[in-house]
Amino acid sequence: MLTVYSDRHTLHHAHAEPFGGTVVEPFECPQRAEYVLARLREVGLGPVNTPADHGLEPILRVHDAGYVQFLQTVWADWTAAGFSGQVTPSVWPGRTMPFRRPSSHIEARVGYHALCGETGIVEGTWEAAYWSAQAALTALDAVLAGDRAAFALCRPPGHHAPKDQYGGYCFLNNAAIAAQAALDRGAQRVAVLDVDFHHGNGTQEIFYDRSDVLFLSLHGTPDQAYPYFMGWEDETGSGDGAGFTANYPLPAGTPYSVWKQALEQALDRIRDYAPDLLVISLGLDTYEQDPISFFKLTAADYLDYGGLLAGLTLPTLFVMEGGYAVEDLGINTVNVLQGFETVAGGRP
Amino acid sequence: MLTVYSDRHTLHHAHAEPFGGTVVEPFECPQRAEYVLARLREVGLGPVNTPADHGLEPILRVHDAGYVQFLQTVWADWTAAGFSGQVTPSVWPGRTMPFRRPSSHIEARVGYHALCGETGIVEGTWEAAYWSAQAALTALDAVLAGDRAAFALCRPPGHHAPKDQYGGYCFLNNAAIAAQAALDRGAQRVAVLDVDFHHGNGTQEIFYDRSDVLFLSLHGTPDQAYPYFMGWEDETGSGDGAGFTANYPLPAGTPYSVWKQALEQALDRIRDYAPDLLVISLGLDTYEQDPISFFKLTAADYLDYGGLLAGLTLPTLFVMEGGYAVEDLGINTVNVLQGFETVAGGRP
Repeated sequence: MLTVYSDRHTLHHAHAEPFGGTVVEPFECPQRAEYVLARLREVGLGPVNTPADHGLEPILRVHDAGYVQFLQTVWADWTAAGFSGQVTPSVWPGRTMPFRRPSSHIEARVGYHALCGETGIVEGTWEAAYWSAQAALTALDAVLAGDRAAFALCRPPGHHAPKDQYGGYCFLNNAAIAAQAALDRGAQRVAVLDVDFHHGNGTQEIFYDRSDVLFLSLHGTPDQAYPYFMGWEDETGSGDGAGFTANYPLPAGTPYSVWKQALEQALDRIRDYAPDLLVISLGLDTYEQDPISFFKLTAADYLDYGGLLAGLTLPTLFVMEGGYAVEDLGINTVNVLQGFETVAGGRP
Repeated sequence: MLTVYSDRHTLHHAHAEPFGGTVVEPFECPQRAEYVLARLREVGLGPVNTPADHGLEPILRVHDAGYVQFLQTVWADWTAAGFSGQVTPSVWPGRTMPFRRPSSHIEARVGYHALCGETGIVEGTWEAAYWSAQAALTALDAVLAGDRAAFALCRPPGHHAPKDQYGGYCFLNNAAIAAQAALDRGAQRVAVLDVDFHHGNGTQEIFYDRSDVLFLSLHGTPDQAYPYFMGWEDETGSGDGAGFTANYPLPAGTPYSVWKQALEQALDRIRDYAPDLLVISLGLDTYEQDPISFFKLTAADYLDYGGLLAGLTLPTLFVMEGGYAVEDLGINTVNVLQGFETVAGGRP
């Protein structure tokens, strides 16, 4: 299986993460991608290509132009305002505020575009996010050209980012950008299956009123897990998209046997939908040792469900999302891909 | 003039404030009230009483019961969750999220009730906020009993807190609680004039659809000043409250000569409204040396506008809000009160 990877992800390296009223080392760190890269080389998964530059256009098919401009300029504006730390939101449009007009002050613009406070922006964040999206688009190229599957080793991840907000370590929604690009290049229907521990609120929001993307997410119940305010079972789409969103919230301690039942329900939905492309938002924070999550999957389970994904016999794009048990992240990630290949066979 | 003050404000003492991507000593600190207390004793402004306990009922006339319960229990729930730092929001209902159901996780509940991230909650925050509200209610007692004016030396301040959210160093809206109590005790109309540098978004929101409270605020333009997303001139009330909110946003560098023109417009509005009571949300961060604001008022200006307020010849309740040039805060605050007394005469 082809992997697409840019080492420019290291340009995004926040040095601190607010957590529980103190500050910790960011859970989302460059070492994550490096462990995955090392492991897939170790097992000889396949070639590792650098991304081709598809430009801004496919990004702007998903994200608002004003938001993209914000990401491009926020570091310069922040430092010009005299702030010395990484970009951090301190004030946001309150739940009951009208927020009709975004203020022009950099503090207000950061808060307007921020979903949460754990995600720091540094000087190289935009460049890293841009090339992360290009990795997804380049891996998509391979699938559209006939590869049964490809892996976009994206960092930063993307699934929490809706059209004009960042958070949950995400800036550009790589999976959504790839799904939209596939539609723009001839696909009629795309399914995005989000197996990250956290709900893919960004992807859901982007496609919520559309029927050409089926979005499905297995995740920790919003009652107990980030992003808390989305991901309930009764969020099923609206307008043209009614019935094209499916959420499978699961409680703390969920073992693979239970998680797998939800996965199989999701796979049935995908079979019925008969998409031209399957995009997997591949988060490995379902792992039993993940430091910020509460499912109980083991390394072997990743091999198993990789095979189940292959059973759909669909062209499949894997897009890297979360996973914070860093030292085991390589094995777990590559287990999914190897489990897939074991069932699907190698490159066509 | 009577002052009402509780030393229990010192129980609220956050040790850190996120600012510009780093952490600083909180601008809103116990020394603020102590400088004011020292100054009013120095000039012999009048007696200083401790607040009488009016209970929760007048607080619940303004704030949601669920929010009050949150404030009462948040520290216990936060520490029970294993968090060691002061309570700090890290995730909130995003601008485009449905947030129909608040999650039960403490992190989500904090974010659901937080307007912004600079305001830390510590073990004694609820008790301090409770007695701050009681100070406002007790000072109101004196005015309703016939005093021409009284001063509630409240800390923490209150004007940023709407019905069920905290932020901007505010938890319970002392001015709104006092205004509502006055109405509940027979007043027909109350005017709340907010002269703090920052827009009184909480007070505005609480009374936005009502005609029995006229709310007026002079403040830094939302385009450049916290809370950014409210306080524009065209926010004038809704429903029954249409026309009963008046905002006077002013640009960076505004000197007293310009500020005073806006004040005089506001005073004209109050005269036309003919309230039974005037509540002044008294923030002194309009001061030229305030570290987080951008108006240019001097110590002498406070004497002057205190006199203008007295010119309304209304029963007047002063409620302490912001002001962060701590060492000059006593002089500036007491200058307003002395300016008022010079015109109004002493206690009746």
